[in-house]
Amino acid sequence: MTSPPSFEEMWAELRPIGRSTRSGGYVRRPWTSATREMEHWFRAQATARGLRLEEDGFGNVVAWWDAPSSLAGGVLTGSHLDSVPDGGAYDGPLGVVSALAAIDRLRGRGFAPRRPLGVAVFAEEEGSRFGLACLGSRLATGLTTWAQARALTDRDGVRLGDVLAGGGPSLLSGIDAYVELHVEQGRGLMDLDAPVGVASGIWPHGRWRFDVGGVADHAGTTRMADRRDPMLTYAMTALAANKQARLAEGAGRGARATFGRVEVTPNGTNAVPSRVAAWLDARAESAEALDTLVGAITSQASARAERDGTTVAVTAESVSKAVEFDAALRGRLATGRPVLPTQAGHDAGVLQTAGIPSAMLFVRNPTGVSHSPDEHAEMPDCLAGVDALADVLQELVG
Amino acid sequence: MTSPPSFEEMWAELRPIGRSTRSGGYVRRPWTSATREMEHWFRAQATARGLRLEEDGFGNVVAWWDAPSSLAGGVLTGSHLDSVPDGGAYDGPLGVVSALAAIDRLRGRGFAPRRPLGVAVFAEEEGSRFGLACLGSRLATGLTTWAQARALTDRDGVRLGDVLAGGGPSLLSGIDAYVELHVEQGRGLMDLDAPVGVASGIWPHGRWRFDVGGVADHAGTTRMADRRDPMLTYAMTALAANKQARLAEGAGRGARATFGRVEVTPNGTNAVPSRVAAWLDARAESAEALDTLVGAITSQASARAERDGTTVAVTAESVSKAVEFDAALRGRLATGRPVLPTQAGHDAGVLQTAGIPSAMLFVRNPTGVSHSPDEHAEMPDCLAGVDALADVLQELVG
Repeated sequence: MTSPPSFEEMWAELRPIGRSTRSGGYVRRPWTSATREMEHWFRAQATARGLRLEEDGFGNVVAWWDAPSSLAGGVLTGSHLDSVPDGGAYDGPLGVVSALAAIDRLRGRGFAPRRPLGVAVFAEEEGSRFGLACLGSRLATGLTTWAQARALTDRDGVRLGDVLAGGGPSLLSGIDAYVELHVEQGRGLMDLDAPVGVASGIWPHGRWRFDVGGVADHAGTTRMADRRDPMLTYAMTALAANKQARLAEGAGRGARATFGRVEVTPNGTNAVPSRVAAWLDARAESAEALDTLVGAITSQASARAERDGTTVAVTAESVSKAVEFDAALRGRLATGRPVLPTQAGHDAGVLQTAGIPSAMLFVRNPTGVSHSPDEHAEMPDCLAGVDALADVLQELVG
Repeated sequence: MTSPPSFEEMWAELRPIGRSTRSGGYVRRPWTSATREMEHWFRAQATARGLRLEEDGFGNVVAWWDAPSSLAGGVLTGSHLDSVPDGGAYDGPLGVVSALAAIDRLRGRGFAPRRPLGVAVFAEEEGSRFGLACLGSRLATGLTTWAQARALTDRDGVRLGDVLAGGGPSLLSGIDAYVELHVEQGRGLMDLDAPVGVASGIWPHGRWRFDVGGVADHAGTTRMADRRDPMLTYAMTALAANKQARLAEGAGRGARATFGRVEVTPNGTNAVPSRVAAWLDARAESAEALDTLVGAITSQASARAERDGTTVAVTAESVSKAVEFDAALRGRLATGRPVLPTQAGHDAGVLQTAGIPSAMLFVRNPTGVSHSPDEHAEMPDCLAGVDALADVLQELVG
């Protein structure tokens, strides 16, 4: 066997896949061409390293470095390969490529595992297609059931049940630990001047769909006083979301509220819309703070709807409770490294919630920007991440 | 020749074309299947009546009832067959079907024209595809040149120059008058208890594109204070537009301002957008009032952009000056009928602006609703419209 490609070589191979020549951002949409190409690449890398591939009916795949005769449970590492629309290169793939590179590093040290070590790729982590973040890991853990998920539809009306078979072998049975490496998505490690850090936990967070109904009408001939325009209710709600989260942040309580996705019907220049659907992404330090935040936004939306003669229906599409990562595992990772919280959901949070001891390593992000073409990590920091991951995996499966 | 179908029969034939089974509204998008089917229907109706078809390279078509040997100029009637997305059945087609029915009525009276009488169908009146309202009549009159229009693109990036050949015979040379019948798009005739009315003129109006630029970012990990979120700037602008127009209306000065179309990039739930493009439709009683309205909205948008750390660029996509319809022609139509202004642009306004004496008949709309599936006119009122149109055409070409 020729020696497998280095981290830098693997990174260069992935660079063009799903990349927009216009923005430089990535569109790696679950179960479409770019993401399938990423997965194909992953399978080829695993096969070239003699790893055994196992997959379930939910789009998740694990490449196993088997131990000769193990009685103990397995250890997983890995991440995801999908992206948000026009996202960055690092969010997801960094954890998968680092996991493969960590295995190469361990082999280079002449190390052989005494327990199975798997590199997992979880499907639809971003929730960009079927609206449910961490879809693959939720299904693999059973936190979301196939019966609940199969009827989810994407923006084109395609059902998840038409894309996936469902069922299949459980990839997570007998797993004792999961360690996910991820690019940091804020400026924490920059402020602390550290290339690699450890996650303490994940803020509670979720997505709520606001359906605002009004009356379609002619934009020219309908008097302002005669309108029931859902755009106005939406606009006030978007401003209210920002204001509520800023008020909390200004008072030293961490909170985020964002309307990043809007769909207008019929979306014509000279028509008052009949309907505006918009998605609130909200997060906070505690479940109580999150409830308060979403409650305040909802009540301001309803008050404005009354003024506009419109209706508002709010549907929680996914809500994730706060996650505290496994203390013992976190302790192993944290030797000499800073520990910091994250506001972003991750598959590691889902596995921890499902009872699998989990932890995360973060790699420094010089701009703090993520979900954007500007997301970045310096190569020396990426390689420091690989070293940190190799060390902890060696300890866990040695 | 068997007798041609009645108004009611023609109306029933058009009813299913481009109709959404969900909303009951119409999607008759220029140069796509439903609108092509409408045009095919029109050509068949013209041919069945022995009318001579003539078309230009801009998608416009006229069905001529030729006069035996005429030295005088022709007279046009007609309207358009395209719709806004999810629009009503009457806006456009009522004028075309009424024109065909009026010819049948005149023939039923044994009348023969002494001047050519044409039924015109103008292309893309709504501007729903290439963003320029009254596109066909603007090109036919030369108010917009082919050199200006050919590079226009639709939302899929298709160029107008790829859809149309351009050029061709001028359909409007030697035309002395244009009379367009249209469903009323407000409640004026309801208030006046009249089935048919006459337009005095059209308010100045236009569309302005607001491009708001920000910085894409992660909706969870980016602190509220670190964002440059274009959604906030847009939301405040939409509220400002409504407020400015309501203030004018409240003070007794007619004004309309609407944001009915929005496109968000990348439009993902967990991403702060990088860009929001939104279209302002604004109208007012006078050019000065329209300038003041758009200026006030633009300045509020810019002020908010400064606060949000975003940028705003405002582009006038089309602006139509006030139209006063031809006084003599309007006088002929107005005998015993109420005269009222309209806030909606029409091909008749374009022809009048280009120097062709034009006028409009309105048919009562019981709800006043237009650009909506709820747009409606009662059959007796439609037939009264046909009678009124037949009478004025008989006078003009007799």
